[in-house]
This record gives sequence, C-alpha cells and structure tokens, in this order.
Amino acid sequence: MAAPRFDVLGIGNAIVDVIARTDDDFLIAQKMQKGGMALIDEARAKAIYDAMGPAIEISGGSAANTIAGVASFGARAAFVGKVKDDALGRIFRHDITKAGVTFDTRAAADGPSTACSYIMVTPDGERTMNTFLGAAQNLHPDDIDAAQIADAAITYLEGYLWDPKDAKDAFLKAAKIAHGANRMVALTLSDAFCVDRYRAEFLKLLRDGVVDLLFANEAELKSLYETADFDTALSALRKDAKLAAVTRSEKGCVVVSRDKSEAVPAASVERVIDTTGAGDLFAAGFLTGLARGRDHVTAGRLGALAAAEVIQHLGARPETSLKDLAQENGLAV
Amino acid sequence: MAAPRFDVLGIGNAIVDVIARTDDDFLIAQKMQKGGMALIDEARAKAIYDAMGPAIEISGGSAANTIAGVASFGARAAFVGKVKDDALGRIFRHDITKAGVTFDTRAAADGPSTACSYIMVTPDGERTMNTFLGAAQNLHPDDIDAAQIADAAITYLEGYLWDPKDAKDAFLKAAKIAHGANRMVALTLSDAFCVDRYRAEFLKLLRDGVVDLLFANEAELKSLYETADFDTALSALRKDAKLAAVTRSEKGCVVVSRDKSEAVPAASVERVIDTTGAGDLFAAGFLTGLARGRDHVTAGRLGALAAAEVIQHLGARPETSLKDLAQENGLAV
Repeated sequence: MAAPRFDVLGIGNAIVDVIARTDDDFLIAQKMQKGGMALIDEARAKAIYDAMGPAIEISGGSAANTIAGVASFGARAAFVGKVKDDALGRIFRHDITKAGVTFDTRAAADGPSTACSYIMVTPDGERTMNTFLGAAQNLHPDDIDAAQIADAAITYLEGYLWDPKDAKDAFLKAAKIAHGANRMVALTLSDAFCVDRYRAEFLKLLRDGVVDLLFANEAELKSLYETADFDTALSALRKDAKLAAVTRSEKGCVVVSRDKSEAVPAASVERVIDTTGAGDLFAAGFLTGLARGRDHVTAGRLGALAAAEVIQHLGARPETSLKDLAQENGLAV
Repeated sequence: MAAPRFDVLGIGNAIVDVIARTDDDFLIAQKMQKGGMALIDEARAKAIYDAMGPAIEISGGSAANTIAGVASFGARAAFVGKVKDDALGRIFRHDITKAGVTFDTRAAADGPSTACSYIMVTPDGERTMNTFLGAAQNLHPDDIDAAQIADAAITYLEGYLWDPKDAKDAFLKAAKIAHGANRMVALTLSDAFCVDRYRAEFLKLLRDGVVDLLFANEAELKSLYETADFDTALSALRKDAKLAAVTRSEKGCVVVSRDKSEAVPAASVERVIDTTGAGDLFAAGFLTGLARGRDHVTAGRLGALAAAEVIQHLGARPETSLKDLAQENGLAV
C-alpha cells in the first residue's frame, strides 16, 4: 500500500461563525440552551442576528476546524463540505485553503446560502451556538471523490452532518471507500442533541465496524448509553468501540480501547476566552498523532495542546502554529 | 439652543476589515509599506486576498470605529457612510447599529461592492492596510441629513474620505450646517499619504475655520508642515488650529490650543496585539470628553484609555464597555 497523500480528510458542515460576546440574560431571553447547539431556520437566523450585538465573522464548522488544526500541525489535510458561491462561501473557501487544506468540493450555484452559526460567548467563555445549515446540508454522495478518500490515512466524519439522507449516504460511501483501501474511519458524536436524535444509528455504526475511532465528550457519551454514570458509559463503550477518545474539559481525556483505558491530563490554560472549537481541536491533535503513528497517549497530549490553544482566544481555528506549539512541548509530529 | 440629540456624528468610509496575521516578509514580497494605508482597486484586492492567509472579518472604517467608541462610552452617536446592499454591507450595518450608533445612510442598490480593507498584522502588532473603497467613496451631499448634523454637538470628518468630489462636497455641506447651528466641526488627517495629497486643502480647511478641531499623529503633522522637527510643526499648528490633539503612540498626546500645549500620557498597555484603530479610538475618547464638557486634559485621558483598550486585541472596535473602563479609571463621562 502506497503512503497516503493525506493524513486526515474531514467531511462536515462548511460554516462561517458569527461570534458575539453576550451575557447570560440574553441566552435566557432568547431561550437558548447554554453550551448547546441548536439548528435554526432562516427566519430564526434573522431574528437572532437582529437581536445579537456587534459580531465578528470567522470560518468555522466542526470538522473544518479539526482539519484546519491538522494542517496547523503540519500534517496533510483535506476537507469535504458544501458552501454556496456567495460572500460567506468565498470567505470559507479562502480561509480553509489558506490554512493549507485541500478543499475541492464544488460550491452550489443556487439554493440556500452558505451556512452560518450565530455563536454567543458568555463572560465565562462558554459558547452557545445557533446554526443555520443552509447549503451545508446539501452535501451529496457525488461530492465524495473516491480517489481522495482512498488516499487519506483517516477519514473523519462530523456527527452534526448525520442528518440529511444525502449526507448520510455520502458518509457511508466515504467509509466504504476508506475501508476498501485499508484506511481508518473516525466519527465525532458532535453534540448530545445529535446523540439523542440518532442514538441507535450511531451505535450501529460503531457495532457494525463502519466507525473505527469514536470521539465523544462526557455528555455525549452518557447520552449515547443513557446513563448518568460516566464509568458505566465507559464500560459500555469499550465493548462497542475499537478505539475512542472521550474528552472531559479540564479533566483531560480518556483514551479507550478494547484492552485498556488511558487517562491524559488537560494542558494548562491561563484564561478561557471562548470554548468554541475545544472538541474540534482536540480531535485535530489526536487524529494527527494517530495518522503519524504516535501512541494513544501522545495523540491525546497533542489533542489537549491544540484544545488549550483554541479556547484562549475568540474563534475555533488555531491562531498559532500547532506544529511549533507541539515542538515546544517536546511532541514533534 | 436646545441640547443636541447627538454628542458626536461621524462621516467616513463604511468598511469591513479583513484581518490576517502575517510576517514582515509577506509585506516585503507584496511591496506593502509597513504601517501605512494604501488604496487598491478590485484587481489588486483580489490578488492580495488570494495571497494572504486565513482571515477574520470585523467591521471597521476609521470614523466608524471612532463613532462605535463614542457609543461605547455611553454617548449619543451617529454615523454617515455608504455601503452597498450586499453581505458585507449588511454586516457593517448590523455591527454599527448594534454598537448603539444611529446609522441612517441608505445603502447603494448597485455599483461597486461594500468597501473592505485587507489588514496585515505583524508579530509586533503593527497593522498595514490595503483598502478597496468600493461603495464607500460614493458618499454624496444628498446623503447628508441637515437636521441630523444640526443636532450633533460635534461633526467629525475622516480625512481618508477627502478625495472624491462628491464626498468633499458632502463634508463641506455638513460643516456649513454644523456651524450654522453653532456646533463644532472636527477633522482627522487620517494618514500621511492623505496629507501628502491634500496638504494645501487641509491647511485651507483649518485656516478658513471650516475645521475647529484637528486630530493628527506625529507623522501626519510633520507631513502637514513638511518638517522633520516635531516642535516646529507644533508651533505652526498652534497658529492654524483653534484646537488640535496630536497623538504620539506610547508617548501619549499633546493637546494644542492658541494659548497653550498640554501633554497627556498614554494609558498603560500589557501587550500590543494589533494597533488597528488606535488613532480612531483616541479620537472617540477625546470627542466624547469634549462633547460632554470635559476639559482638554480629561478628554485626552479618555482618548488614551480607549486607544489602550483597542490595541490589546484584534480589530478596531472596542471589545469592552469604554463607559465602564472610564469609570474604573475615575473618569466618568
């Protein structure tokens, strides 16, 4: 088998984030669930934008953030996702391409606008997201380039996108191609609401071996196994997943495989500014480590480093070279 | 005379900033003059955007930043400037309106796109700007609402906009209305290149009393009087200007009137992240102080506080309440 052209290829929602600082009262008045992600339609998007304060626009999207992180580590990265050919779509394409990511998915010429996520950041650094999926949800199996998938050591799927029929089919097509080329398939559960909605389907993806590596945070994992007890959920996970990385915010992460669990501490953080992208960047480090043949604990430490970088500034894409950061921490990739 | 409805009304370019971190080599390769502002056409805008790295989009524009700062101090503020009715134009309108600023200028339905400025921020925090003026330069005397101008204690003009014939006429119309209502007219020289281009016209505006208050930084002032000696320039300025505030970066500012010069120190800064908007926010504080009847030194201190806030983060609009910041520093406005 030839060496893959890409270390990691991500498939997900192509989104531009619209970020505003706000207070908790705003979330209450707007009936937003703090820390969560809500899908909104165009009318609600307009209402939220009209209500929220001055904002900044930064490219986002969960898997897209992860892939930008992979590129920042100096690894070879590709992204598959749908924008429209409009102003936000061109911003998204510019930013991910200039981050060093291969992004060949054709923009939609018509239909709904490029996706955007209205993100409220409260003084404690917590982010609350409201996403208008627009063009992003129109990802289609035809957008999957078989040669590109076969040429990626790991194909990474975003749970947020597991919703429209076409996007699910695109996932399954990509997973099949990846496994046919002896590559690895990873999935993030993305959000507890995704798990609530698709618990059975996500478990089936795991148990059928469609997914080799699972990313989840504590809330998502508990939701997956419908338990309030973390250890119970972890034991269940070990039976279902070949490999999983479970993130626990400031408590670090646990890497779970069939034969063991390994805890990796979080990296130190001076001050949390905006938690947007914490999970995405953890995945970036972990995936990069794995794709580059590092052991699970080293991969976890790379994830922790990247997550710590991204929560210390506004926006979900790294602002400093993760490659340099890894080197400074004795973790050359 | 009734109390004015607005403390400060600003007239300037309505611009969305596209900000990327870069190194000095990029500036050299792109033949950009570090620290300066260059006007660019659409083709050059495209070439720069294609060459620059991942960016963030934040509303900007010199006088617009100043006016957002005035509103952040809790003062009553209005802005006059031209956007197109496009994605960036809607972002600009959202951000300035939500900053608490009255912004009634009609968007252009056709013609060039909303202005944007490609801003490179080097590791030392210095910003280098390349501005595509687009719709902004089509500001017309018809966009000046006489009642609004007459109802503002200070009308503030941005030197950057002193270029197209229609915009100049809009300025002169506004100044005439303001003086007819016994209000004050202020002008910023904006950039040494503006001064180079329009030295004689700017001096005439001062000497004819069209402008009551001048803002300039050291480089602009030296350029205005074509001298390398700061004190020589300052002496000349005292003869021409009723009142002027000259900013000197970390050396603070000098407030110059016919009978005296008063130095005001800079506010303390932990770390300079991005100098974009330093001059704009100084003007915000100074204008707010003056409009609220504070003495020149207090106005200068308010300016110094606002400038210090804005250079400690990316982007040229305040991220914290300047009203609170002023109060914490014993300078309630």
